[in-house]
Amino acid sequence: MRRVRLLLIGFGNVGQAVAELLLAKDGDIRSMHGLALQVVGIGTASHGAALDSDGLNLGRALELIQTGSDLRRLSRDPVPSDVQELLQAVEAEALLESIPVNYESGQPAVTYLTGALERGMHAITANKGPVVHAFAPLTALAASRGRQFRFEAAVMDGAPLFSLWRECLPGARLQAFRGILNSTTNLILSLMEQGQSFAAAVAEAQRLGIAESNPAGDTEGWDSAIKVAALVTVLMGVPIGLGQVERRGIEGLTDREIQQASQSGHRWKLVCGAKRIGDQVEARVEPELLDSSDPLFHVMGTSAAVTFTSDVLGELTIRENAPGPRTTAYGMLADLLNCVLPAARAFDWFASNRRG
Amino acid sequence: MRRVRLLLIGFGNVGQAVAELLLAKDGDIRSMHGLALQVVGIGTASHGAALDSDGLNLGRALELIQTGSDLRRLSRDPVPSDVQELLQAVEAEALLESIPVNYESGQPAVTYLTGALERGMHAITANKGPVVHAFAPLTALAASRGRQFRFEAAVMDGAPLFSLWRECLPGARLQAFRGILNSTTNLILSLMEQGQSFAAAVAEAQRLGIAESNPAGDTEGWDSAIKVAALVTVLMGVPIGLGQVERRGIEGLTDREIQQASQSGHRWKLVCGAKRIGDQVEARVEPELLDSSDPLFHVMGTSAAVTFTSDVLGELTIRENAPGPRTTAYGMLADLLNCVLPAARAFDWFASNRRG
Repeated sequence: MRRVRLLLIGFGNVGQAVAELLLAKDGDIRSMHGLALQVVGIGTASHGAALDSDGLNLGRALELIQTGSDLRRLSRDPVPSDVQELLQAVEAEALLESIPVNYESGQPAVTYLTGALERGMHAITANKGPVVHAFAPLTALAASRGRQFRFEAAVMDGAPLFSLWRECLPGARLQAFRGILNSTTNLILSLMEQGQSFAAAVAEAQRLGIAESNPAGDTEGWDSAIKVAALVTVLMGVPIGLGQVERRGIEGLTDREIQQASQSGHRWKLVCGAKRIGDQVEARVEPELLDSSDPLFHVMGTSAAVTFTSDVLGELTIRENAPGPRTTAYGMLADLLNCVLPAARAFDWFASNRRG
Repeated sequence: MRRVRLLLIGFGNVGQAVAELLLAKDGDIRSMHGLALQVVGIGTASHGAALDSDGLNLGRALELIQTGSDLRRLSRDPVPSDVQELLQAVEAEALLESIPVNYESGQPAVTYLTGALERGMHAITANKGPVVHAFAPLTALAASRGRQFRFEAAVMDGAPLFSLWRECLPGARLQAFRGILNSTTNLILSLMEQGQSFAAAVAEAQRLGIAESNPAGDTEGWDSAIKVAALVTVLMGVPIGLGQVERRGIEGLTDREIQQASQSGHRWKLVCGAKRIGDQVEARVEPELLDSSDPLFHVMGTSAAVTFTSDVLGELTIRENAPGPRTTAYGMLADLLNCVLPAARAFDWFASNRRG
């Protein structure tokens, strides 16, 4: 059994879901992959940090955070005073980072991911910001250290988009994509179609823990736009920023427009898309009036989908139903396993798969 | 530029599409992956075989086969008298096999794939038969020779299902799947919904080159059933044969039933599925009456889709729109590239991806 030491930075919904998933899947990961995953450090902005080179008690960490307590009391090793000190003190193979990130700069995630790579860790993020703002330097830094920078959870939670292209579609050229990538706005539009006002739908999405207290990042299309920029940058090889995504949100749609669409068998959706035009990529986020023949018409609630158009497969659609923090956590776990597992594992995978 | 020598066995619709794709993607594969792919042997049942260790002229091979000529005149090296002799004479890194296969035995494909692995080639098939009848021995043989047995094109053409599970979803447990996996029956049902009789729909599907002259393999659900058996065997780790898939085809559906369903907003689909029950798997193929809330309701014509339910991602759906021989050929090309490319190629992939 090979032990793999992990550092978690960020212990909110996603970080806690990672801890819960590590606990739930510990037996599977040992039996399927021969790995014992062990969290040796947890860093947070407002609940302190904990460090134990023999492995932190994750169940206890979850208890502390869920009762609003400080994580410092979990530490057996000297307590780092902040995340930067934790990064320098910890001995780990991989960082799993899920902190709140500034859309405009990708910070402070970029700094932490850089620090982790410089210390020889794989750097895994759940955030889009570092992908859009620092994909090239982080990827190059990772390569120079023989490590990896991965970010599967940054778009469509745990659904494999980046790894699909990297691992499953060699030789293919992505020509265009089109999808619904923001759960909050899709849920709001679904609720409005059922007769709720925009304000009531936002409030309901907030009550469900889907929308943030300030929903503008979702409703104005910023979250969608940065996801489009991340996909274009990585999958189309054309680095673009937020400013190069034409963006309109759903805040201009009236209850009446949504009801009228519904009555005529149509549906408004916040559609993300990009396509190659010569060497450039045209990227956009905007409400579209869809009819029922459109595959995106049927993506309801918090579900998401993307259709990739390539030169060799035509249209290939990936759809995830009702994602949540657990699926985002799985995206990070998949990244981690793909970083630390030997690459040529096909036969082992099939063998390990015997157990149901 | 690394040269990779290939052997094609089978030069029907799929084999020819492989040749066309190799010609079309030659520049891309050189620039993206640094590989020069070169077909040095082609074997067929009824049009002879050709062998040239310096590389066959694929354009000429396509001309010959498409005018009903014998491939032997293409050979510069001594002409093998049959496929077995070709297999022993050729020096190649990989076999790409797409011959007609007996559902019941997986032959003669299993023999050819075995022969290729024994001669140190990777063995790639477009057929389901070898997966259901010989997955374990072929996989073990491949591993013992440091080679791979791959079969992405066997189910849903080039859409990545097997590689998705092998490469992108480490640690995940497949609990159930449900899908539409047979293009012919889905097209027939789509045509019947538009008012055609079963017989007329079958004839139309034959005219389009989708249905075979004897359509029973599709309409009675055999093709679907063997695909279910292949997915269960490989992805769920429970080897089952055709006899363990409960099977009903579409031949019992009347025009009237299909029209009635349509009038009430429903739709008949030939649905494939499997789920774990303890250590066993319950597998079936049968017509189901779906309403419009079912994602499979919207899969029309020759399109196909499958929803995987796993412990970590909930429901993840993969859908391909209007596949054809080119997408099947891409499934084989993807297998080939994944066999011969170095496994840890993430950084190279991103770099190679710059060019649109």
